[in-house]
Amino acid sequence: MSAQTNIQRKSDMAEKLVYSFAGGASDGDGTMRNLLGGKGANLAEMCSLGLPVPPGFTITTEVCVGYYTEGKKLPADLSRQVAEALAKVEKDVGAKFGDAENPLLLSVRSGARASMPGMMDTVLNLGLNDVTAKALAKKTGNERFAYDSYRRFIQMYSDVVLEVDHYHFEEMLEQKKRDRDIELDTELTAEDLKELVSEYKAKVAEELGTSFPDDVNAQLWGAIQAVFNSWMNPRANTYRRLHDIPESWGTAVTVQSMVFGNMGNDCATGVAFTRNPSTGEHKYYGEFLINAQGEDVVAGIRTPQPLEEMPAVMPDVYKQLTAVFDKLEAHYRDMQDIEFTIQNNKLWMLQTRNGKRTAAAAVKIAVDMVQEKVITKAEAIKRIDPLSLDQLLHPTLDPKAQKTVITTGLPASPGAASGKVVFTAEDAEAMALDHKEKVILVRIETSPEDIHGMHAAQGILTARGGMTSHAAVVARGMGKPCVSGAGDLRIDYAKKELKAGSHTIKEGDIITINGGTGEVMLGLIATVQPKLSSDFNELMSWADEMRVLKVRTNAETPLDAEVARRFGAEGIGLCRTEHMFFDSERIIAMREMIVAQSVEGRKAALAKLLPMQRNDFVELFRIMHGLPVTIRLLDPPLHEFLPHTEEDIKQVAASAGISVEVVRHRAHELKEQNPMLGHRGCRLGITYPEIYEMQARAIFEAAASIIKEGKENVIPEIMIPLVMMPKELEILKALVDKTAAEVMKEKGVKIEYMVGTMIELPRAALRAAEIAESAEFFSFGTNDLTQTTLGISRDDSASFIEAYKKQGIVEQDPFVSLDQSGVGELISIAAERGRKTRSDLKMGICGEHGGDPASIAFCQKTGLTYVSCSPYRVPVARLAAAQAVL
Amino acid sequence: MSAQTNIQRKSDMAEKLVYSFAGGASDGDGTMRNLLGGKGANLAEMCSLGLPVPPGFTITTEVCVGYYTEGKKLPADLSRQVAEALAKVEKDVGAKFGDAENPLLLSVRSGARASMPGMMDTVLNLGLNDVTAKALAKKTGNERFAYDSYRRFIQMYSDVVLEVDHYHFEEMLEQKKRDRDIELDTELTAEDLKELVSEYKAKVAEELGTSFPDDVNAQLWGAIQAVFNSWMNPRANTYRRLHDIPESWGTAVTVQSMVFGNMGNDCATGVAFTRNPSTGEHKYYGEFLINAQGEDVVAGIRTPQPLEEMPAVMPDVYKQLTAVFDKLEAHYRDMQDIEFTIQNNKLWMLQTRNGKRTAAAAVKIAVDMVQEKVITKAEAIKRIDPLSLDQLLHPTLDPKAQKTVITTGLPASPGAASGKVVFTAEDAEAMALDHKEKVILVRIETSPEDIHGMHAAQGILTARGGMTSHAAVVARGMGKPCVSGAGDLRIDYAKKELKAGSHTIKEGDIITINGGTGEVMLGLIATVQPKLSSDFNELMSWADEMRVLKVRTNAETPLDAEVARRFGAEGIGLCRTEHMFFDSERIIAMREMIVAQSVEGRKAALAKLLPMQRNDFVELFRIMHGLPVTIRLLDPPLHEFLPHTEEDIKQVAASAGISVEVVRHRAHELKEQNPMLGHRGCRLGITYPEIYEMQARAIFEAAASIIKEGKENVIPEIMIPLVMMPKELEILKALVDKTAAEVMKEKGVKIEYMVGTMIELPRAALRAAEIAESAEFFSFGTNDLTQTTLGISRDDSASFIEAYKKQGIVEQDPFVSLDQSGVGELISIAAERGRKTRSDLKMGICGEHGGDPASIAFCQKTGLTYVSCSPYRVPVARLAAAQAVL
Repeated sequence: MSAQTNIQRKSDMAEKLVYSFAGGASDGDGTMRNLLGGKGANLAEMCSLGLPVPPGFTITTEVCVGYYTEGKKLPADLSRQVAEALAKVEKDVGAKFGDAENPLLLSVRSGARASMPGMMDTVLNLGLNDVTAKALAKKTGNERFAYDSYRRFIQMYSDVVLEVDHYHFEEMLEQKKRDRDIELDTELTAEDLKELVSEYKAKVAEELGTSFPDDVNAQLWGAIQAVFNSWMNPRANTYRRLHDIPESWGTAVTVQSMVFGNMGNDCATGVAFTRNPSTGEHKYYGEFLINAQGEDVVAGIRTPQPLEEMPAVMPDVYKQLTAVFDKLEAHYRDMQDIEFTIQNNKLWMLQTRNGKRTAAAAVKIAVDMVQEKVITKAEAIKRIDPLSLDQLLHPTLDPKAQKTVITTGLPASPGAASGKVVFTAEDAEAMALDHKEKVILVRIETSPEDIHGMHAAQGILTARGGMTSHAAVVARGMGKPCVSGAGDLRIDYAKKELKAGSHTIKEGDIITINGGTGEVMLGLIATVQPKLSSDFNELMSWADEMRVLKVRTNAETPLDAEVARRFGAEGIGLCRTEHMFFDSERIIAMREMIVAQSVEGRKAALAKLLPMQRNDFVELFRIMHGLPVTIRLLDPPLHEFLPHTEEDIKQVAASAGISVEVVRHRAHELKEQNPMLGHRGCRLGITYPEIYEMQARAIFEAAASIIKEGKENVIPEIMIPLVMMPKELEILKALVDKTAAEVMKEKGVKIEYMVGTMIELPRAALRAAEIAESAEFFSFGTNDLTQTTLGISRDDSASFIEAYKKQGIVEQDPFVSLDQSGVGELISIAAERGRKTRSDLKMGICGEHGGDPASIAFCQKTGLTYVSCSPYRVPVARLAAAQAVL
Repeated sequence: MSAQTNIQRKSDMAEKLVYSFAGGASDGDGTMRNLLGGKGANLAEMCSLGLPVPPGFTITTEVCVGYYTEGKKLPADLSRQVAEALAKVEKDVGAKFGDAENPLLLSVRSGARASMPGMMDTVLNLGLNDVTAKALAKKTGNERFAYDSYRRFIQMYSDVVLEVDHYHFEEMLEQKKRDRDIELDTELTAEDLKELVSEYKAKVAEELGTSFPDDVNAQLWGAIQAVFNSWMNPRANTYRRLHDIPESWGTAVTVQSMVFGNMGNDCATGVAFTRNPSTGEHKYYGEFLINAQGEDVVAGIRTPQPLEEMPAVMPDVYKQLTAVFDKLEAHYRDMQDIEFTIQNNKLWMLQTRNGKRTAAAAVKIAVDMVQEKVITKAEAIKRIDPLSLDQLLHPTLDPKAQKTVITTGLPASPGAASGKVVFTAEDAEAMALDHKEKVILVRIETSPEDIHGMHAAQGILTARGGMTSHAAVVARGMGKPCVSGAGDLRIDYAKKELKAGSHTIKEGDIITINGGTGEVMLGLIATVQPKLSSDFNELMSWADEMRVLKVRTNAETPLDAEVARRFGAEGIGLCRTEHMFFDSERIIAMREMIVAQSVEGRKAALAKLLPMQRNDFVELFRIMHGLPVTIRLLDPPLHEFLPHTEEDIKQVAASAGISVEVVRHRAHELKEQNPMLGHRGCRLGITYPEIYEMQARAIFEAAASIIKEGKENVIPEIMIPLVMMPKELEILKALVDKTAAEVMKEKGVKIEYMVGTMIELPRAALRAAEIAESAEFFSFGTNDLTQTTLGISRDDSASFIEAYKKQGIVEQDPFVSLDQSGVGELISIAAERGRKTRSDLKMGICGEHGGDPASIAFCQKTGLTYVSCSPYRVPVARLAAAQAVL
């Protein structure tokens, strides 16, 4: 309901601010979450279903919104409506609020549109004072229960509404037990509790200078207002920010008659799931506590019994309860998380909601429910958060293990790993290969030369760099855990140690990292290995049936390609040839090529690289068995390959047969201020055409050798990076075509191939119509396109992007989820203009966003052909692509 | 005429390939440059005007174009049309081509649409062979003349058509003179020349294996084809590339009857300008040579006499000639560059064209012609190349001075300067201030910390960086000569020397740089100081009347602001506050602010900077006298201000009262991979709001103090840089507004002000509608917008941008002239979307492009309000803005 219609209705008649539920009828229903909050809507719905719900009413979220816009004032008509609703509850329960004979007790709870567990405040047993407590004692014949309820109420109300810290009360309770020389609360007598009530009230008066409210209506309004206030408490604010919940939603307040699980041994309280939320097994799962109030279960003060033991102690109630479970699951068509109370052998339902569950359970429940014909395959697919699948693919920390977190960085690549700390890629390799040690590679930041060390390590930890830093991207590609940008770390390469706060960790000390949370921990912490269930495969096969977008992978090593195939990749969307050049043997030839000062010098060095590149492609083509393989020609600034150390320089000089001085001068010449915007991508192809020519030759020769075997075909897709001008592509396509013609003639085979380009600069997106004249496909390089469209280098964004999220300037790191209204507009423009020139233009996305569900939905909407993502993201993308269709 | 209509017409009837001009009538006219070339069209026009033009005809440029598309074949009908036209010439002249009695001689010349002086080939005296030479001797009674013409013809034809190198013939000529023991060609007798003819022909036969063509028609077709071939010779290709002349234009061929200035002492040849092309003075200006052929004047073999001496020797012809001058100038309404020949006291006009002139002459001629009522003010304005005005504003090298060029870099900032070489900003300052020496600051590249040294130096030379590198931009701003990106230089700071090729230059050695050409020269070379003429001021005042775009300047120092005011700037469009922080006193406070690890630490340091900033603004506001001043808040990455040396680090640590270790760690933390895409611009304002708050306070306090004086008003325009998200601006505008309110309250004055933003990221351009909700003005930062739209850092583009120009991928360096179809589209989108939100949105451009005429025309077309450029570009922009309207 908009503010406008709200005002209009006000002028017509009093707006409905309060919704009752009682006796199998309710004003609201389960669809009214926005107005009544999740809890209020659920209670209304359960009540309508005829389930035993303690009568009550809900004050709408709009009252909360108005409360804040009107300077914390409640609407005039609210007290009348609450009084009316309360009268209905009194009538239904047969008790009166504040009555000296038969008093009605109430609970007051918050309930927002989205669940915010534990974030806001609740008051129970409201309506007790010296008079009603006495009446309760008399009515229940249980004085101890009455005064225990009373002292609990004072404690809770004082904490939540009056803001008197609860430790005061806990202290007094402990003191009382010490005085009585007893251990357990339950050993306190009614008399003890009465004394405590007096002492509590005295304490409140002392702290506040006014006495604890005896008037039950004052209690009620204090509690209602406290719930509204709790919407803006720091805990709630933080939770909302972390979970993207707008402040403007507000919370509802549900006031409900109390039922008691602690009135005796025919009473109990419990929580239950209709299926196992951890494994998904189709079996009731829960706990209950005899003679206890709900908060005891939640707080873990006493240890509850498993639900399996209930038939033995309360067989009738158990039967009734499981009937309710089945009814609720059938009604909601999803696994339910239920709270119940048994008062004098009568079952009361306090809450039901869709249960939270692990990724494994989510998959199993969804698949089971399809097989039970409860939901459709499409519904099953929609129920799984694609990102949660990551949990199923990577080792995770044993949730029961103890841990000492020494710092937290960015959760850059999921999974957990432990190992000995090493500080260089060389040490990582040596320790891992020679000594068979598990190691964690710790670097200030990583560079392409560290890749062999990253391969050797169990996980990677860096002090600098964001979610799409080199370390993060490469680690995700490898499926290795990585924590990046742990800015508190001080790494001293010389001393081979790292400091985090007061901890000093030396080379060889063991740490554990959790790439799913960003935590870095001392010592070895047990991990749980993943295995893919048949349910998982079933679900993925349904996703594959439904999706339109193809899913490819970003891979260049045989290992990555194999993993991706196993995860269902339908081709390679991005093979970054530069990653193939960091091998120790190749890097020398590569450096020789770079420092060469003539075309001949470069060609000589390239001739050494050609057979290696050819073999790379032969291997990849074999693994991909005829699936499309998109190969990007050399992209990064040459200086990434430069020799750094004196040793490197000498080695290159010797290999190239030139002086150390020349190598050093050339290395100096190639240094750039902003390499991301420098001499890279197809600019290398234009200035040093012999490089691209060698690469094209390697690709075509590899294809020729596979084709000649006659078993399968290869249709390489050659991709030119960083095009900004249509003519760049025109020139380089001609070079590729010429090379193809030469190889085909030499080898006597016909090779089909495509030449396309990355669209990764704003200018390329704008000039897509002209570029499509040469390009047979577009691949949107959304990492670079984000960098240029937003003017943010992914390597340097960590220093401010968190502040941007906190201040609400960006909702998400734009390198994690596509900036749809900026970068997205350019992609749409390019897609539209490109298609105008070439209606059958193949288009895909190959940035990090290719594995992000929201970005995948955008790709579907924009009509792209495929997404390409790192191997471990392939299942995520398959599921997200199916959801994008639904 | 398109190829299509061409083919169509061919099928209808023979296409007209040849245009005659003869006897006061011609097929073509002066408007047909595209078809007949400049020379052909001009001859046709002169002929129509009734001027004495030797009869002839022109073969069209379309024949040339066809020649290349048809694989160097000439159209079938051409020979018939040439024969017809030739017959007309024969009839008009009364001589026959190849005739044994009265032979017609011809010249064959190229002539493209645009003048390409000396780039293509010409053949004179065509039609001579042993028979016709004899006839010529007889007819003229001048055997020596006839055989001199013959040997010249053989030499020229062999060189141009037969490709026998001319040095052979020069060698033989010299030998002949040595044999005869004479010095001058004119001392050779007819007999000597006859012998030379035979020897020349023998040489040709020896070189080619075939004899020199005696057949005059073979000679003619050989020459025609040679002209067409010359369109693609390397010289012509280079010239076209440098002058942006498309290959597809082709050249025409003009065949014309010969007239001779070398038939005796009643003959002469000459060139003349109708006004002085160097000063613009309204006085005939030229040279002539008695008894000589035109090529002798051009080649400078003999020294010609000034035109002033002609009345004494040929009074009648002189009178006739000046009448022609006046007629031509009146006809073409511009100063003419004329070639003429006098044959036996008869004047023949060979060529006229608008004369090339210096910038000073261009201004004077244009202004004079307006005063003479020959042209309108608008025409006067259109005639001046705005960029040429640079010549008038900067010292230039004395064109007569000898020079040794040791290397050539980019012409980064115009003007010439000489001085002693220094390698550090400190040395520059010390030498210049303490020793009153003129110095040239030589750096590998400059950074903001070098600015004081750049101020002290006469000129700046760098080994790295493009046309918009730091050195280039700052030097242009200061109006100082700069040569940047001289990549051949090897600068050794340690040895204090630089090497260029074989030259080694040590500190203290004198060099001269020419920032207009990029040349670096040994020693001191005389320069000419500029002065602005009253004509210049007159012309600029007309430009000001006509233009719509306002012209502001980019300035932050009082000196720059004053220079810009003198050049007519109408406000400051970009005051870069960061440039104000490099002063030695301020940099310490700035560094203290940067290394501070708390808000309090930063505030303490900022408090030291506040009074300095306030004074800066007071000064600027005073100089600008109420004109608008746009102040950009801090923009560059903080690391630009970081301490570099150990000394710096110690100083900052002491000043901030923190440890050296902390300063070093912080400096390390702030280092970025790609600072251009890093933590800069408004990202600093968001993360460290206290910085922008201090700057806003300094601005408002300065404005308040001026306003309080009551003499004039100040309306500061505060500009937030690097906005990518509407919310960034929203937050920072609120901060500025809050600060303004505080200052107004404290000072008790009302300050009008505007808050706007730079549009310098593609995303900002796309989201301009939302950004305009907070922004009261947009300033297009086209430097950064070019960097991000094209993905090129201006600091790193030098390594490939030349290759891009050579391969025709870009026409112009996009940092020099706006990339209209890429960056320009984003500007158009932003302007349109911004105006939709706020119809009175003020919009300007403040990148380097603000001083580029083509970019200014784009700004006019896009409807911007103003352009802002460096002070020395202000006159250029004023003129270009007027031209953009016309």
